[in-house]
Amino acid sequence: MAEPLRIALAGLGTVGAGVIRLLAENGELIARRAGRPIEVVAVSARDRGKDRGIALAGYDWHDDMTAFAALDAVDVVVELVGGSDGPALTLARKTLAAGKGLVTANKAMIAHHGMELAALAEANGAPLRYEAAVAGGIPAIKGLAEGAAANRIERIYGILNGTCNFILSEMAATGRDFADVLAEAQALGFAEADPGFDIEGTDAAHKLAILAAIAFGTALDFASVDVTGIARIRAGDIAQARALGYVIRLIGIADCDLAGQEAGGEAQLFQRVAPYLVPVDHPLAGVTGATNAVVAEGNFVGRLLFQGAGAGDGPTASAVVADLVDIARGNTPPPFSLPAALLAASVPADPGHRRSRAYVRFMVADRPGVLAEITAAMRDAGVSIESFIQQGHPDEEDGQPVLVSMVTHDGPEAGVARALALLEQSPSLAEAPLVMRLLG
Amino acid sequence: MAEPLRIALAGLGTVGAGVIRLLAENGELIARRAGRPIEVVAVSARDRGKDRGIALAGYDWHDDMTAFAALDAVDVVVELVGGSDGPALTLARKTLAAGKGLVTANKAMIAHHGMELAALAEANGAPLRYEAAVAGGIPAIKGLAEGAAANRIERIYGILNGTCNFILSEMAATGRDFADVLAEAQALGFAEADPGFDIEGTDAAHKLAILAAIAFGTALDFASVDVTGIARIRAGDIAQARALGYVIRLIGIADCDLAGQEAGGEAQLFQRVAPYLVPVDHPLAGVTGATNAVVAEGNFVGRLLFQGAGAGDGPTASAVVADLVDIARGNTPPPFSLPAALLAASVPADPGHRRSRAYVRFMVADRPGVLAEITAAMRDAGVSIESFIQQGHPDEEDGQPVLVSMVTHDGPEAGVARALALLEQSPSLAEAPLVMRLLG
Repeated sequence: MAEPLRIALAGLGTVGAGVIRLLAENGELIARRAGRPIEVVAVSARDRGKDRGIALAGYDWHDDMTAFAALDAVDVVVELVGGSDGPALTLARKTLAAGKGLVTANKAMIAHHGMELAALAEANGAPLRYEAAVAGGIPAIKGLAEGAAANRIERIYGILNGTCNFILSEMAATGRDFADVLAEAQALGFAEADPGFDIEGTDAAHKLAILAAIAFGTALDFASVDVTGIARIRAGDIAQARALGYVIRLIGIADCDLAGQEAGGEAQLFQRVAPYLVPVDHPLAGVTGATNAVVAEGNFVGRLLFQGAGAGDGPTASAVVADLVDIARGNTPPPFSLPAALLAASVPADPGHRRSRAYVRFMVADRPGVLAEITAAMRDAGVSIESFIQQGHPDEEDGQPVLVSMVTHDGPEAGVARALALLEQSPSLAEAPLVMRLLG
Repeated sequence: MAEPLRIALAGLGTVGAGVIRLLAENGELIARRAGRPIEVVAVSARDRGKDRGIALAGYDWHDDMTAFAALDAVDVVVELVGGSDGPALTLARKTLAAGKGLVTANKAMIAHHGMELAALAEANGAPLRYEAAVAGGIPAIKGLAEGAAANRIERIYGILNGTCNFILSEMAATGRDFADVLAEAQALGFAEADPGFDIEGTDAAHKLAILAAIAFGTALDFASVDVTGIARIRAGDIAQARALGYVIRLIGIADCDLAGQEAGGEAQLFQRVAPYLVPVDHPLAGVTGATNAVVAEGNFVGRLLFQGAGAGDGPTASAVVADLVDIARGNTPPPFSLPAALLAASVPADPGHRRSRAYVRFMVADRPGVLAEITAAMRDAGVSIESFIQQGHPDEEDGQPVLVSMVTHDGPEAGVARALALLEQSPSLAEAPLVMRLLG
C-alpha cells in the first residue's frame, strides 16, 4: 500500500476528538478505500491536559498550531479551531503558502476569506477542502460541485442551521413560544449559550454564501446576504401558517441572473436567509429537528435534495475525513469548483423587483378601524390580498394586542414594503409587522 | 485551456439525444468546470436517418459502435444502448481493453458484469463510471463512494424504481387498483409497454446490487437479491396501511454482517427488493411520483438521504456528463470504490433469522371460523399479533372474498413463513396471503 497521508490536527474539541475516534474505528476500511492509510501525526489544542476520552500519547503535540505549516512530516492540516480570523486564518494561510493541503470545517473563515484562500491554494498547488463547513455530514458541496457539475444551477436553497430548525419544529410540535423553546434547546445542548450566530441567521448566511459561489460560479459575497433571523416568530405565526397549509423554516436561498453579465455587465446575485412558509407537501417541510437539507435545481437534472445531520461530532468528522479521502485519492478540484480567477464578479440583486407571495403579520390593538387601515395601505401600495385571518385566542386577555395575518397574491416585494411604510406611524400596531415569504 | 476530452456516443435514444443537447447548452460552463472541453466526436445508433431533433452532421458516424474502441480520436465511450449482454457488453469490453474510459447508464450490464468490467478497467488503467445506472440524476454513487467514504455503511435502502413509485403513489392518491393505474402509467409513458422489469422489481434489484457492492465492499451479487414486485398490492392494502400510519413503497434494502468474515468465514449479505410499509413521518413516505431516493446509514454520519429524478433524459444525461466531468478532472477512483480484487466474497444472509414487524393480508371467504383459523396458525407458529383488522367495504358484494389484514409484533421472519405454511391448504383463503415488512 502507498505511503500514508499524514495529518496535523488543530483543535481537539468535540469534532477534533471525533476525527480521531473515526480514524481509529474505521481506519482500516478508509485505508482500503483511499488506497493509503490516513494517519494523524501531530495535534494541537489550547489545553494539553484536558481529558477528551482519547489517547493523545502517540501524536506529536504542538502548543503553537501554526508550526504545522513548517513540518516536513505533515501533508495536510485539519483546522477545527473556528473563528473567521485570528489563529485559524493565520494557520490556513501558512499551511497553503507552504503547499500543504488544508481541510477545515470553519464556515465563517471560508465565507469571509474563501477567495483569498482559494487563490493561495491554487497558486501553491495545495488542496483546500471544506465539506464539513456546510450542512455538517451531508456531502452537499460534493453533490453540487461534482454531482451536479453538468448543470447550470438555477436556484439553491435549504435548511442550513440545525439550531433554528430544532427550535422551529419544536415550536410547531408543542405550540410553545420562541424564548421558551430556545431555553430548552440551550439546556439540551442544541443551542449555544450565546445563540446569536444561529438564531440571527449569520451561520446559515455563511453557508449560503459558500454554496452560492459554487453553484453560480460567482465570487463569494457574504456581505450582501440579506439576513433575517427567527427570534420574532410567535407561536401564533406557526399556527396561522399551519392553518394555511405551511410550516415555517429558516431557509437560505440564492439565485443568479446572468443576463447582465452576458450583456457585458455584472451578474445579479440574490442571496437571502429568512424564515419562509414552506408548503407541507414540500420535502423541506418534513425536515425536523437539527437535520439540514440542501436543494439544488439544475437545468437538466431538475430538483436534487441532499439531507442529513447538520452538526454533531460524528457527522462533522465524517465530512472532514471524506475530504481527506478525496485528497488521498488525488481528487482535488479547485476549491470553488471553478478556478478562483474565473469566479465572476456580481452585484446584489434588488429584492424589490422579485415577485413572491408573502405572509404579513400584525400585532394590533383590537379596535374598530384597524383592519380597514391595514387593507387600505395594502390597496394604496398596489398589494393584492389573497387571504386575511384574524383569530381570537381562547386565552386572550382584554386589551392585549391581537395577531392578525394575511397572505398576499404574487407580487413585487417592493409593494409590501411600500404598504408597511404607510403603516409605520399607525398607533394601531403594537410592534413592527413581520413579513415572511412563501417558498414557491 | 487543456485538450478536449473526446467522446464517442453509442445510442441516440432519448438519453443519448439528451447528452448531446446538454453538452450543446451547458458546454461552455462545463468546460470551465472540467478544465477542458468535453466534445462528442463520434456517434452510433441503429437508424441513421431518424429525426431526433438534434443535428448529427458534425459527428463521425459509425454503423458499428464497437469500432469506437479502436479510434485514436476517442478518449471515452459513452454506452447508452442498454441490455445486460449483447452489443453493449461487447462494446464495454473492447473499450476498456483498449484503455479507453467507459461511461454507461446500463444498470443491467453493471449488475451482471460489473466485476469483470471493473477488473478489466483497473488492469488497463481505464476509468469506468456508471452514475446514471442508479437512481437517474441523483449523485447516489458519488454520495456513497466518496461523500460517505469515511463510514462503515450499516444499511442502505431506497426507492429505486420510478415506475413503481409512480404507480404506488397514484394508487394511494386515487384509491384505484393496480391494473388500472398501471394502464394509466403506460398511457402517460411512465411505464413500458412490457412493464415486467419494473413492476417485478428486477430493475430495482439491479440498482440495489450495485449500491450494496459499493456500500459494503462486497463482490456484486445480483443473483441473490430477494425480489418481490408490486403487482399483488390491492387498493385495500394501501387503505389498511394508511389507517395504521404507513404508506407502501417498493424498497430496495441491503445490509451486511461482517462478523463471519472477521472470524475467517464469509460476510452475510442481505439484499431485498420488496414492497414495504413506510411510516408516514419517514422521509421516504413523502417521495411520490417517479422520484427516487437513496438512504445510506453510516456509523459516523448517521442517516444521509439523496433524492431526485430517477429517470428521464435530462436527469440521466446530467449523471452521464457528471461522470465525464470527473474523468476530465482526473477523478477516477476504482469503479466499486475498492479495487475489484479487494471486494469480499459473501454468502446470502438467511432471511429467516431476520427480525421485523410484518403486515400480512388475507383474502378470505367471509365465513365463521376463518379468523380463528388464521389466529390459531399464528399462535402455533409463535407469531405474536399486534393488530388485526377486518374491514367490510361499503360496496362489497355478498360472497366476494373479504380483505383481512394483521400486523405482527417484531419477530423472526421464519415465524410468519411457518404460519402461512400451516394455512396453505385452507379452503378459507381465496388467494395466497401477501406479506409486507414494516420499514424499521
